[in-house]
Amino acid sequence: MSSTLFVPANSIRQRLKVFIENITVQRILLAFILVNAVILGLETSSDIMAAVGPFLIALDKVILAVFVVELTIRLFVHRLAFFKDGWNVFDFIVVGIALVPASGPFAVLRSLRVLRVLRVLTFVPSMKKIVGALIKSLNGMLSIAMVLGLVYYVAAVMVTKLFGEAFPEWFGSLGASLYTLFQVMTLESWSMGIARPVMEAFPYAWAFFIPFILIATFTMLNLFIAVIVNAVQTMHDDEHKDEMDEEKATQKQLMEQMQQLQQELQALRRDMNKS
Amino acid sequence: MSSTLFVPANSIRQRLKVFIENITVQRILLAFILVNAVILGLETSSDIMAAVGPFLIALDKVILAVFVVELTIRLFVHRLAFFKDGWNVFDFIVVGIALVPASGPFAVLRSLRVLRVLRVLTFVPSMKKIVGALIKSLNGMLSIAMVLGLVYYVAAVMVTKLFGEAFPEWFGSLGASLYTLFQVMTLESWSMGIARPVMEAFPYAWAFFIPFILIATFTMLNLFIAVIVNAVQTMHDDEHKDEMDEEKATQKQLMEQMQQLQQELQALRRDMNKS
Amino acid sequence: MSSTLFVPANSIRQRLKVFIENITVQRILLAFILVNAVILGLETSSDIMAAVGPFLIALDKVILAVFVVELTIRLFVHRLAFFKDGWNVFDFIVVGIALVPASGPFAVLRSLRVLRVLRVLTFVPSMKKIVGALIKSLNGMLSIAMVLGLVYYVAAVMVTKLFGEAFPEWFGSLGASLYTLFQVMTLESWSMGIARPVMEAFPYAWAFFIPFILIATFTMLNLFIAVIVNAVQTMHDDEHKDEMDEEKATQKQLMEQMQQLQQELQALRRDMNKS
Amino acid sequence: MSSTLFVPANSIRQRLKVFIENITVQRILLAFILVNAVILGLETSSDIMAAVGPFLIALDKVILAVFVVELTIRLFVHRLAFFKDGWNVFDFIVVGIALVPASGPFAVLRSLRVLRVLRVLTFVPSMKKIVGALIKSLNGMLSIAMVLGLVYYVAAVMVTKLFGEAFPEWFGSLGASLYTLFQVMTLESWSMGIARPVMEAFPYAWAFFIPFILIATFTMLNLFIAVIVNAVQTMHDDEHKDEMDEEKATQKQLMEQMQQLQQELQALRRDMNKS
Repeated sequence: MSSTLFVPANSIRQRLKVFIENITVQRILLAFILVNAVILGLETSSDIMAAVGPFLIALDKVILAVFVVELTIRLFVHRLAFFKDGWNVFDFIVVGIALVPASGPFAVLRSLRVLRVLRVLTFVPSMKKIVGALIKSLNGMLSIAMVLGLVYYVAAVMVTKLFGEAFPEWFGSLGASLYTLFQVMTLESWSMGIARPVMEAFPYAWAFFIPFILIATFTMLNLFIAVIVNAVQTMHDDEHKDEMDEEKATQKQLMEQMQQLQQELQALRRDMNKS
Repeated sequence: MSSTLFVPANSIRQRLKVFIENITVQRILLAFILVNAVILGLETSSDIMAAVGPFLIALDKVILAVFVVELTIRLFVHRLAFFKDGWNVFDFIVVGIALVPASGPFAVLRSLRVLRVLRVLTFVPSMKKIVGALIKSLNGMLSIAMVLGLVYYVAAVMVTKLFGEAFPEWFGSLGASLYTLFQVMTLESWSMGIARPVMEAFPYAWAFFIPFILIATFTMLNLFIAVIVNAVQTMHDDEHKDEMDEEKATQKQLMEQMQQLQQELQALRRDMNKS
Repeated sequence: MSSTLFVPANSIRQRLKVFIENITVQRILLAFILVNAVILGLETSSDIMAAVGPFLIALDKVILAVFVVELTIRLFVHRLAFFKDGWNVFDFIVVGIALVPASGPFAVLRSLRVLRVLRVLTFVPSMKKIVGALIKSLNGMLSIAMVLGLVYYVAAVMVTKLFGEAFPEWFGSLGASLYTLFQVMTLESWSMGIARPVMEAFPYAWAFFIPFILIATFTMLNLFIAVIVNAVQTMHDDEHKDEMDEEKATQKQLMEQMQQLQQELQALRRDMNKS
Repeated sequence: MSSTLFVPANSIRQRLKVFIENITVQRILLAFILVNAVILGLETSSDIMAAVGPFLIALDKVILAVFVVELTIRLFVHRLAFFKDGWNVFDFIVVGIALVPASGPFAVLRSLRVLRVLRVLTFVPSMKKIVGALIKSLNGMLSIAMVLGLVYYVAAVMVTKLFGEAFPEWFGSLGASLYTLFQVMTLESWSMGIARPVMEAFPYAWAFFIPFILIATFTMLNLFIAVIVNAVQTMHDDEHKDEMDEEKATQKQLMEQMQQLQQELQALRRDMNKS
């Protein structure tokens, strides 16, 4: 780096851009992420920590330093445009979490440091593509998800008013009801765990739970179908377009030949009439 | 309003129609519904109710009054035709519930007042469209649902006779059996919670439960598939129709040119034979 | 009936055939089935039985007698060909069950009498069609189902040998293992109820349960997909065939016109060469 | 066999190849596998073992000997090429397991001997084809499965750090967390069994569980959709290719006729100009 010390800043930016986007550098960074994933896994074992804990922690710090340097370079290269790409923001946050002193009320951040491993998604193009596709497929679900959300909210308010006093643990507050109804939507212990005990106090509680389950699962089913239909349609469009283009090309060719024939015929007729 | 006091009633109807269908008025009403949703959510918290309860209740009453006025206007504008639209009936019922004195046997209606929030579905066109599509997709499921219902009813009668006496809580009456079998269909605790205890008294009970689960889940699967196939077909038809129309247009053009060619050829021959 | 007493047997058969296939007779029989469904439902309530029990039982017997007469007529009309149709065999069995004296070891047959209600499926054409389609769709699943069955059997034998001694209730015999693994396949309490207790005795039991769940659910998923793909294909073929037929007709027409053109051209050339 | 004792080795190989690939021999081997399946099933019953145990064990040994001979022949016939086919490797392993002395630490192998029954998959072509298709369909799922695996690993590390100390049974080690999160992904007792107890110690634990469930189930859903779309596409391509080929053939024919017409027309013109 010392050889670039006296060149103008722009040239440094250019060189750093080339350096950071170099395929070998990218692969080394990916290797660091994978090593980091293994280290963070090993750190969960107290036996391994007792044996080589200090070494692992030191290695973790070195890798973190590499990531900080890498992001600093990318920030320097792209300036504020850096934050326009969602993936960069993601990288920035997951690396940044590790720099916040994880003590007192932030102790939970210590365990969020493992999110750094998700940077693999940024570095492996095929995975980046799939996550992009997954996020994109959420768009098609948005309006059904809003209907589901509305029904879910209304049901939570209703259930808090109906059963909140008698079953404070499950329906005592709007938050508790939202959680419990989420559980009911996943069908986990909805009857033996929730609805049957409630029905002992309110015999007609089934009149809430059964319609709720039917509506929620039917709406969720339609969410899924929306994604499936979207996926089939995209696939269909992609392949069909090629076929259609080809077919149109053939038909255009046919038309042209037909017109040539006609012109030739007209020429023939003109020739004849002359003779 | 006082300025319209002496104009004929029909003109008032016309003006009110314009007023109530005005996009700004619609948006204000939607805002009222959303505020109402928040209020009804806040009302579930006893802390917030202790602090600003009277204010929230007053605001709720004001919003209810606005809805009553709105529906009265729409009833006045559309007269009995108002009830021909399912959405209007829905609005009428969910607002009407709030006006029934919720005391004594009707105490449960107090918690149904939150259904008012579902009026969002009436006011946001994209959501209205989706709910319409969901309801429409039920049609394609109707006949399979009837088969499922029949199997479900027969199974409930059978199970009440078989296990009713020994397990009154689960199968004591037709209603209890219907509820328990619904639980079994959702696969919730069907074995550890229901079938295994029953099998201790009736060792061959699995001969009922396993076929029931296989038939019910297979039929439900086919319900879902019916919806998927319908959705794919609709999508397919929509896009295919355009393509097919285009293709037919091209072929018609081809045919016409061909006939022109033929006519020209015949003319040529006639010319020749004359000469 | 007395007026037909002296006509030849064949003529009686013919008349009875017309009678039994008459749409009104069919509808009356359907009404009887539906009334029977209600009666069998009401019979599950001890209150109602205490009040009008003898009347319901008498009515049930009358309806049964009607069914016996109906089936006797159909047997007489179709002779042995009657048993060639699966639906007739179904009718014969569900009605026949009611005639077996349901006492002693056959007491369970008493509750199977409700299966008679499933005759609705025979009498409502749209439901008959759907059940036919459901049964037909099983064909496409057959070979995957056999693979699943094989995996299931092998897993059951393995699990009986591995955990049978320690957990006789769940895995004590091949039958018990088959039942427990069916429960595991439905994912009901597979972990908290079965796998975790087993893992306390055999810490590596997860090495059986997790692969089993992955393989079983993946294979079941493919079963479902086979049904979906079949359904989509059938739909596709049906609509596509029409389109394709139309397209082929158009192209055939094009070809013919082309050949006519060619012939005309050749005639023209012959004419010219002559002249 | 004694008659082939003095012929050259190659000829023996050839004869053995014909013998082992003979359809009747294959069917006999399949019958042995099926008999073996029944024997291994019967061996799980202590009653049957008490009665005819020695006979079953002897029969099992005979069948095993047949399999060993069969595989030895196939090894001799194909030499090392034998191991190039995955199915052969599978056969070799499942038969080989039975030859390892199942005592001491290898006692578990005794129960793995039933895997031999899976050789049915090798011998029935239709099942072999389906298993091949199932394995092939895994390819399309690979990259989404990797994303899911990454999320799963990160979640397991995170949860071990967060809840490991307080709930050692569920989250005490990375392995325990991986198992528990697999259970959560199948939605089995995730709330009543795991999340609610955890939430008593960590009230905000829902902030981990609910996003985890949403992300995991959404990603799994997309795994399934990938398989469905693949299946539909394959079906589509297969049938479409034929259609497209046919259509292209028709269009090529049209083109050729058109060109013939044109040539004829040009010939006509030349003739005319000459005359």
